[in-house]
Amino acid sequence: MKQFKVAILGATGAVGQRFIQLLEGHPWFTIGALCASDRSKGKTYGEAAEWRLPTPLPQVIKDMTVQTCQPEGLEVDFAFSALPGSSAIDVEPAFAAAGIPVVSNASSWRMGEDIPLLIPEVNPDHTQMIEVQKKNRGWKGFIVTNPNCATIGLVPPLKALHDAYGVEKIMVSTMQATSGAGYPGPPIEVIGDNVVPFINGEEDKIETEPQKLLGVWDGEKLKFADMVISAQASRVHVSDGHLEAVSFSLREKPGIEEVIATMESFVGEPQKAGLPFAPAKPVIVTREADRPQPKLDRDAGKGMAITVGRVRECPLFGYKMMVLSHNTVRGAAGAAILNAELLAHQGHL
Amino acid sequence: MKQFKVAILGATGAVGQRFIQLLEGHPWFTIGALCASDRSKGKTYGEAAEWRLPTPLPQVIKDMTVQTCQPEGLEVDFAFSALPGSSAIDVEPAFAAAGIPVVSNASSWRMGEDIPLLIPEVNPDHTQMIEVQKKNRGWKGFIVTNPNCATIGLVPPLKALHDAYGVEKIMVSTMQATSGAGYPGPPIEVIGDNVVPFINGEEDKIETEPQKLLGVWDGEKLKFADMVISAQASRVHVSDGHLEAVSFSLREKPGIEEVIATMESFVGEPQKAGLPFAPAKPVIVTREADRPQPKLDRDAGKGMAITVGRVRECPLFGYKMMVLSHNTVRGAAGAAILNAELLAHQGHL
Amino acid sequence: MKQFKVAILGATGAVGQRFIQLLEGHPWFTIGALCASDRSKGKTYGEAAEWRLPTPLPQVIKDMTVQTCQPEGLEVDFAFSALPGSSAIDVEPAFAAAGIPVVSNASSWRMGEDIPLLIPEVNPDHTQMIEVQKKNRGWKGFIVTNPNCATIGLVPPLKALHDAYGVEKIMVSTMQATSGAGYPGPPIEVIGDNVVPFINGEEDKIETEPQKLLGVWDGEKLKFADMVISAQASRVHVSDGHLEAVSFSLREKPGIEEVIATMESFVGEPQKAGLPFAPAKPVIVTREADRPQPKLDRDAGKGMAITVGRVRECPLFGYKMMVLSHNTVRGAAGAAILNAELLAHQGHL
Amino acid sequence: MKQFKVAILGATGAVGQRFIQLLEGHPWFTIGALCASDRSKGKTYGEAAEWRLPTPLPQVIKDMTVQTCQPEGLEVDFAFSALPGSSAIDVEPAFAAAGIPVVSNASSWRMGEDIPLLIPEVNPDHTQMIEVQKKNRGWKGFIVTNPNCATIGLVPPLKALHDAYGVEKIMVSTMQATSGAGYPGPPIEVIGDNVVPFINGEEDKIETEPQKLLGVWDGEKLKFADMVISAQASRVHVSDGHLEAVSFSLREKPGIEEVIATMESFVGEPQKAGLPFAPAKPVIVTREADRPQPKLDRDAGKGMAITVGRVRECPLFGYKMMVLSHNTVRGAAGAAILNAELLAHQGHL
Repeated sequence: MKQFKVAILGATGAVGQRFIQLLEGHPWFTIGALCASDRSKGKTYGEAAEWRLPTPLPQVIKDMTVQTCQPEGLEVDFAFSALPGSSAIDVEPAFAAAGIPVVSNASSWRMGEDIPLLIPEVNPDHTQMIEVQKKNRGWKGFIVTNPNCATIGLVPPLKALHDAYGVEKIMVSTMQATSGAGYPGPPIEVIGDNVVPFINGEEDKIETEPQKLLGVWDGEKLKFADMVISAQASRVHVSDGHLEAVSFSLREKPGIEEVIATMESFVGEPQKAGLPFAPAKPVIVTREADRPQPKLDRDAGKGMAITVGRVRECPLFGYKMMVLSHNTVRGAAGAAILNAELLAHQGHL
Repeated sequence: MKQFKVAILGATGAVGQRFIQLLEGHPWFTIGALCASDRSKGKTYGEAAEWRLPTPLPQVIKDMTVQTCQPEGLEVDFAFSALPGSSAIDVEPAFAAAGIPVVSNASSWRMGEDIPLLIPEVNPDHTQMIEVQKKNRGWKGFIVTNPNCATIGLVPPLKALHDAYGVEKIMVSTMQATSGAGYPGPPIEVIGDNVVPFINGEEDKIETEPQKLLGVWDGEKLKFADMVISAQASRVHVSDGHLEAVSFSLREKPGIEEVIATMESFVGEPQKAGLPFAPAKPVIVTREADRPQPKLDRDAGKGMAITVGRVRECPLFGYKMMVLSHNTVRGAAGAAILNAELLAHQGHL
Repeated sequence: MKQFKVAILGATGAVGQRFIQLLEGHPWFTIGALCASDRSKGKTYGEAAEWRLPTPLPQVIKDMTVQTCQPEGLEVDFAFSALPGSSAIDVEPAFAAAGIPVVSNASSWRMGEDIPLLIPEVNPDHTQMIEVQKKNRGWKGFIVTNPNCATIGLVPPLKALHDAYGVEKIMVSTMQATSGAGYPGPPIEVIGDNVVPFINGEEDKIETEPQKLLGVWDGEKLKFADMVISAQASRVHVSDGHLEAVSFSLREKPGIEEVIATMESFVGEPQKAGLPFAPAKPVIVTREADRPQPKLDRDAGKGMAITVGRVRECPLFGYKMMVLSHNTVRGAAGAAILNAELLAHQGHL
Repeated sequence: MKQFKVAILGATGAVGQRFIQLLEGHPWFTIGALCASDRSKGKTYGEAAEWRLPTPLPQVIKDMTVQTCQPEGLEVDFAFSALPGSSAIDVEPAFAAAGIPVVSNASSWRMGEDIPLLIPEVNPDHTQMIEVQKKNRGWKGFIVTNPNCATIGLVPPLKALHDAYGVEKIMVSTMQATSGAGYPGPPIEVIGDNVVPFINGEEDKIETEPQKLLGVWDGEKLKFADMVISAQASRVHVSDGHLEAVSFSLREKPGIEEVIATMESFVGEPQKAGLPFAPAKPVIVTREADRPQPKLDRDAGKGMAITVGRVRECPLFGYKMMVLSHNTVRGAAGAAILNAELLAHQGHL
């Protein structure tokens, strides 16, 4: 595989740090530029960032000089964006226009009608939108996004079921980790001995992103999947790993064992192509009575596998289950890296 | 009001300790006997129990001698039962047979067809079953029970809505406190930085007890309410206070403000009668975006009020909300005390 | 006792909220003014403050209009200061100059040579400094301060021992609660699953305040006690309650039982005078092997008693023990209230 | 290097699981037998053990049959012992007698006068005791032990200082992780929002083991180092990583910078020999104001490096500092593995 030089936009924040950590030793991608806000400009990364991950900051990154988030003069093949939404809205188009593709974790452009919202196991063909996007906007580069950290655990199991039986309704109650709020995140005074039953904007994202991800691209536009989702989102005292209690109805009525077998056997393009960040199985189904648990299951598949458990009958919707995914790996930086791997594999980079 | 002497069955455990704490200074009830397992027999309570509540153990209780759980020779008017289910199944009938009414927090007898499952604000007339129970079983006393700690927060708001509009379907995902597991409860190794998505037997209780509580007593038998409930129960890292994400459908279609007003104005028999443990409002509705929270709202109404928040539209069921109640006060010892107050008020004790 | 009207300076912050909570129903003191920063001016307290205590905010306080921190026009007998050090440095002298005595929890003026640093059980006679202070500074009012939250648990037990045997050396390692950092305090990302072995300025305060508190006032100036203290301060994952591991040497060599008896029998002026906030015993000594613990012992004496445990021999210094006190009651607002009660009792207010 | 087959005694417990995890892929040691209590006998390891580590249980280990803790018929070169003290007292000598050397993490035999208590960086020459031990006891094999998990972080920094300046007095207050209590360890009800200022037997170990570790072997017997230690041990709400607040005096009076340089430049036999588990630097000194922290520093050197910080003057003893080490890696299984590597390197296995 060709080697790529990448920039990290928003390199000093929590997601930016995860990109640096996860890209260490990546077989295809090498960090060629670290971009952050003006107040970090000219500092070394070691000076500009307060490194908070338990693995050591690589020396070569520590010594790199941080640049501002401008495409001019950057010699990179593409950029990962770990920007907050408020910066991404302007910075990402500037990079795309300048011919630097942006693989983004930000929410700003996810629902744009010519912007792929991508999970490689779910909708790898949506990258066909890229050509339309370039043409529409007159960009030399493009933007590709990954979904919200709570959406991303939900959709791969649903994809397997939707293809086989047709998913109609989904009720989901989330118990989300504090790392999802970035750094510094909630004070101990707020989240210690507590649950906060509200995360700003989260329920909307969970209720609308899956229909785009499971939609059909007809070569010109995307037909959203026809399903109704209702979400309640809570923040709990867990460091990493979003757990979701899910009930759902299917057009067909398979037995529980068949539902389990369908999720267990699910593989997508990343598994077939052997992409470096692809877990062997994107969806693991556990039969233990009290799993999945954030502490024990979030690191499955190096944080890239989704663990489903307690698949059983629901007296209202037919089926219920618990779903767990690692919100800062599969749900953020790892999602974008797998997206970039797919794009490289498909020849888009 | 007449004064009553009470026994506490299972006095040394977590719920037993709560009974002792909450009964201190009670205007009607005085502790006359402390009963526990054989290994505590003959010890003072101070020796037998490892007191774990932050308020001091009253000296008079500390010095009382613990007895076994047998009705013979006890000079009390009735008994509170904080027994585990495995003991309650035999001990409670023995007390009832011997003429000592049992006001129980145990689960063993809750679903018995002539045993009242009671929330004083919800179904005070179900105590009419007592006469049938005595006759059926040939007992001089009787057993009255309170529901499971997760059921009890859910039902008073539903009662207000059911009377007004007819509740049909309820989907609930719980986030339950560790104190609900008794002492010692889960190890830090298990629940620290974690959520455990399983509580043995809990979902069944939540799915079946509300229909009994909201059922109609016709003088001879109880007609269960006709509604379908689906529950998913999780244990979170919170000391006290069960939070529940609830979606529900109604036969009629009131607006959100009307739903709120109906819950806010709800009062029951305990409020009308001014029972000592009755909170001024059994259901408090908060309009703040991020409430109710266990840490901030569990002590509302001295732990006896239920706090509802985030009442809003659900795209699937019409309505959704968050519900919080204090699981060891309103959900256990406090529930039984309010039950006993109602029984005293009605002349059953 | 005469009734006093009081102002709370810094009323909206964490310590200010504690003052409001603890003063509810106080037999002598009524809140007459709530003062905060300019951005709260003219709002009701309910609007200006985000109330975070589990007991309800009294309606009468909720409706009071917040004023700025200026003495002009205030009709109060004295003021409690919950100001941060940076404001206290100017605001407190302004009040004192204007004839409004300030009973302060701030650190700014603690070490001033004519400013009493006061624990009523330890050095009630230091209030004699007030006359010197007024004269020196030309103030109609005065400032009295309480010590740092980690100092205050340490000094009453040491006072008992110092009077009896002479304390020479003290080595202390603290494990301090997060509430000591105010609101919002440390993020869960920082303090969750962690200990932070550093609290800015804390070790200096612990190493210097006790010598002033245990010093002798000769009518003109204060002779500091002659002892050497070394402190290491850490922040742990506890909400309230500072625990301290203490080793100390004495000039005399009493046995362990004698040391315990000396601390247990210690009473001071507040106990003799029956001041409202005085705990029955300022120092409680527990003999249980694993106490004191923050969760179980911080509320002793309604948060005003200090609990000492594990008193035993130290191979280096002769004696070691664990000391616990409630940092936001005895260590902050409660400390100031007890100081004010002493001042009222002595006729200084 | 020769390849060794090893048995794990106590393989199903928390420390046993750590041995299995850490030995995966070890260049010299392969697991040849898993031994546990009688109730696990004949089960596969997957059935017998509740695997609780976040890395997956290797399939080859999962399928191995668990044996009882008897040396007969075992074809291994030596054994790691993760036994509790009550079993180790008999089982370890049985293995040693039968010619299977035991590298033990248990406390039972640590202070035996012919049993090496070993930290490879500190006293690699103490393995000379093995010949005396074999002769004394008539064993074909031998026992070598590693120190207590709180001792082990303290001694390497002290070794560097003791060699250079002579350590005289040490005062230490520990803040220890819950994993040190094994599985299940303390309930959340006990350690949540709390500190427990007592760990059974821990202070004795910290006060006596360092003198043996720093002692001098003259070919016949061990002369203990002449220093006095006083310890206070507390359990805090941290999963892994023991933090210790240490004050110490030295015979010579080097400056702080010299003390730091002495610790930083310290290397031992494992570093010189390049043993697989040896960290590049056994003692890392950080100059950041608020470090070391368990969450950020416990994994330094893959959990085998000790991090020292806040080295500064102590007004009582001359020097103080904070010390952190990973209690289940450097403090337990990793310690024993490094001991075995030293023994292999020296030709004792």
